[in-house]
Parts: sequence; structure tokens; C-alpha cells
Amino acid sequence: MQLAEVLGQVVSTVKEPGLEGLTLLLVRDTEEPSGPGYVAVDVVGAGVGEIVLVATGGAARVAAGAAIPTDRAVVAIADTVIRSGAVTYSKS
Amino acid sequence: MQLAEVLGQVVSTVKEPGLEGLTLLLVRDTEEPSGPGYVAVDVVGAGVGEIVLVATGGAARVAAGAAIPTDRAVVAIADTVIRSGAVTYSKS
Amino acid sequence: MQLAEVLGQVVSTVKEPGLEGLTLLLVRDTEEPSGPGYVAVDVVGAGVGEIVLVATGGAARVAAGAAIPTDRAVVAIADTVIRSGAVTYSKS
Amino acid sequence: MQLAEVLGQVVSTVKEPGLEGLTLLLVRDTEEPSGPGYVAVDVVGAGVGEIVLVATGGAARVAAGAAIPTDRAVVAIADTVIRSGAVTYSKS
Amino acid sequence: MQLAEVLGQVVSTVKEPGLEGLTLLLVRDTEEPSGPGYVAVDVVGAGVGEIVLVATGGAARVAAGAAIPTDRAVVAIADTVIRSGAVTYSKS
Repeated sequence: MQLAEVLGQVVSTVKEPGLEGLTLLLVRDTEEPSGPGYVAVDVVGAGVGEIVLVATGGAARVAAGAAIPTDRAVVAIADTVIRSGAVTYSKS
Repeated sequence: MQLAEVLGQVVSTVKEPGLEGLTLLLVRDTEEPSGPGYVAVDVVGAGVGEIVLVATGGAARVAAGAAIPTDRAVVAIADTVIRSGAVTYSKS
Repeated sequence: MQLAEVLGQVVSTVKEPGLEGLTLLLVRDTEEPSGPGYVAVDVVGAGVGEIVLVATGGAARVAAGAAIPTDRAVVAIADTVIRSGAVTYSKS
Repeated sequence: MQLAEVLGQVVSTVKEPGLEGLTLLLVRDTEEPSGPGYVAVDVVGAGVGEIVLVATGGAARVAAGAAIPTDRAVVAIADTVIRSGAVTYSKS
Repeated sequence: MQLAEVLGQVVSTVKEPGLEGLTLLLVRDTEEPSGPGYVAVDVVGAGVGEIVLVATGGAARVAAGAAIPTDRAVVAIADTVIRSGAVTYSKS
């Protein structure tokens, strides 16, 4: 999974039926802050500014459901990131 | 999914039977505007210049059908993109 | 799918049985002409110099067969590429 | 698989049920030391500083279980890496 | 598939059971010689210095077996690479 920050949301009226009723979050990997944003289905109720874990590929459909045509899903909200024994992120 | 702009279309006569009758859109990620274009099967009736969501890998076949040999599908047309609380794209 | 040019071919005697009898084309994405070449199973009879569509991942096995251990397949020969309303490639 | 170093861990309370009880390791590819870190489910009991093998995509769920929404799993701890006949890494 | 050179091997004692008894080759893409190495399960008996074809993702498990948690497998040994009509590699 990627560590990512929730930046915002995408709203769409015309879409594949499997995406109906789902929240489409705009996120960006925190390990590549200059990298591109992308869109992930939310399954954990994440909000803007939160640091989350995003699963890619088939893993996104394990989380969102096999009939959901998504390749990305937010599967966890990070509380703490520990790196070399030190807490480098803590959700306040 | 990737946010992408529809640039055009690819026409092909000699192709795998599963691709018959499908629209093959040429798209490019809007988050990487200098990046390469690629080709996605359209399942939502998107037109040139529209901002869409493209699903990659198995998700493309959830949308297009399991027997369609595509790794990309346009699965939604974006109406609005909201980033840090501000609307950064709105389909006019 | 990726737009790619057929550069040549790879010949192999010692290989996984599922690859027996298949043509292994060496191709390179036309949208990234300085990018690396890679090898794709041909299912449409493409020739050197032709512009083709290459499917990646499970899509390659939808085209080539589920028992073929390939992650890339040439699934279409492009006749025309239309970009912003103009024909930018036409197979002559 | 990628050769990667275990850097630390991510702790999450709000997560997809399939991730309950699993250790989420923060790792980084040793072949790309300036590359981004990412998060992998641990199935071998790896510790910080160890060099491990990380499987990506469906391979992660072969290791962790089909119902686990992860796209990365630590599937082996490396004892020795041999390159051009020389041992370039040895777990001491 | 990627054209790759076999650089060496990784030895691991603590590993997911599905990897038991398999040779884990360290390889690097020949089309990206400055790129990172990675680890692939060998199914064709390739040796150091040989040019091989590596399949990625589910294709690796078509070759190695569905229960093997690998995302890469060496599926062929290249005899000849032909590029624009000229032989650019020949196994001597």
C-alpha cells in the first residue's frame, strides 16, 4: 500500500454503475509529494488532510467489492508512522 | 483511477475479436500533462476534451467485460474536482 | 493499452511450455520513444514497423489465453490515430 | 519481487476489516534507495533493518490471503545476495 | 515480458512456504541497464549472464504455479534478439 494524503474529491454524474454511491477521493502519495494525484474509492470514511493507506490493483476490489471498477481504494487511516524507531507522523 | 483528458481516438481494423465495436479513446493523465498518452476502452460515452476517470488493470475489465482484452477503461466523466476545499475543475 | 511500434522479434528455444509456437515481438511505446523496449505475444499478425496496441497484465492473457505466461500482448494494429481532431498517424 | 529494507511500521485503528491483526511494515527498495517507501503486510516476521523480498499485486494476496486488501507483502527474509559470483549482502 | 540479464541469486531461509525449493534469481532489465535489479522465480533453468524473458504479475504465477507468491518469473532464455532486421543479440 502507499501512504497518501487525502487532497479532495471528484464528483461525477456520468459513470459506470458500479461506482454509484461511492466517494471518490483525490489523494497523493506522501512519499512522493511532487508526484501526481490519483483517485481512490473510500471504504473507511477518510477526510481531507488525513494520511491514509491506498491499495492498488485487485486489492482495491477486495476492499471495495469485486464488481466495483476501481484500481485504488483507501483501506486504512494511519494513526502513527514509525521510521527507524522514531515516530515521524502522528495523527493528532 | 487516473484523472485524464480525452485527446482523440484510435481506429483499428485488425484486432482481437473482443475489441470489436468498442471505442478506443486516446487519453492522457491530467496530473502528468507531459506524460505519455495511452488508449482506453470507453464505457461512458466520453468526448474529446472531457476530463474523465480511467481505471487500470483488472478494473478496466470489470467495467468493459471480462472477455475484453483491455487494461484501461474510461469509467466516469468528471463534473467537479475539489482540492483543499476549492473547486479546481468544473465541467462547464 | 499502449500505442507501440513493432521493432523486431525474440527467438527462444528454452521456454515455458505455454509460450511454444507463439511469436514474441519486440515493441516500444510510441508515446515514449526513448523508453525501453519490451516483448509481447502477437495475436493479430503484426509486422515490423507497424503501430499496434499492446495490452498489459491480465488483459494480455484474455487475448493470448489464460494458460499463456505473458504480461503483454499485441491486440490490435492501428489504422489511424486522431488527436484533437487531426489525423496524426495513418497506416499507408 | 523487490529487495527491500524494513524501515519501520504503520499503525492504524480505522481500517478495512481484512487488515485487522496484521503487521504493516514500512519498507523501501534497496535497489532504489532514493525511491519512495511503501507499506507491506508482513507474513514472515521481519524486523527493522532486515533485507526482505516484497511481492506485489496478486502475489501479495497469495501470501497474505485472498481476502486481505493488500498489494504488497513481505514474503521472505534475505540471507545472502550473490551478484556476479560475489556475495554483496549477507545477513550477519 | 522484459528482456533481462541474470545477475545472481538471492538465498533465503525464512520465507513464505510457497517459495520453498525455488531458485530466486536476481535480474535486471537489459533495456534499462541503469535500472534497479529485482528478483524472479526461475522456471527454465537460467544461469548467470544469460539473457532471459521475465513475466510480471499474474503471468509469473501462470508459469510458477498459482500458489507461488511471486510477481516475477523467468519464463524463457533468449537465443536471438532481432531489431529492425538485424540480430542485436545472439547467445553464443
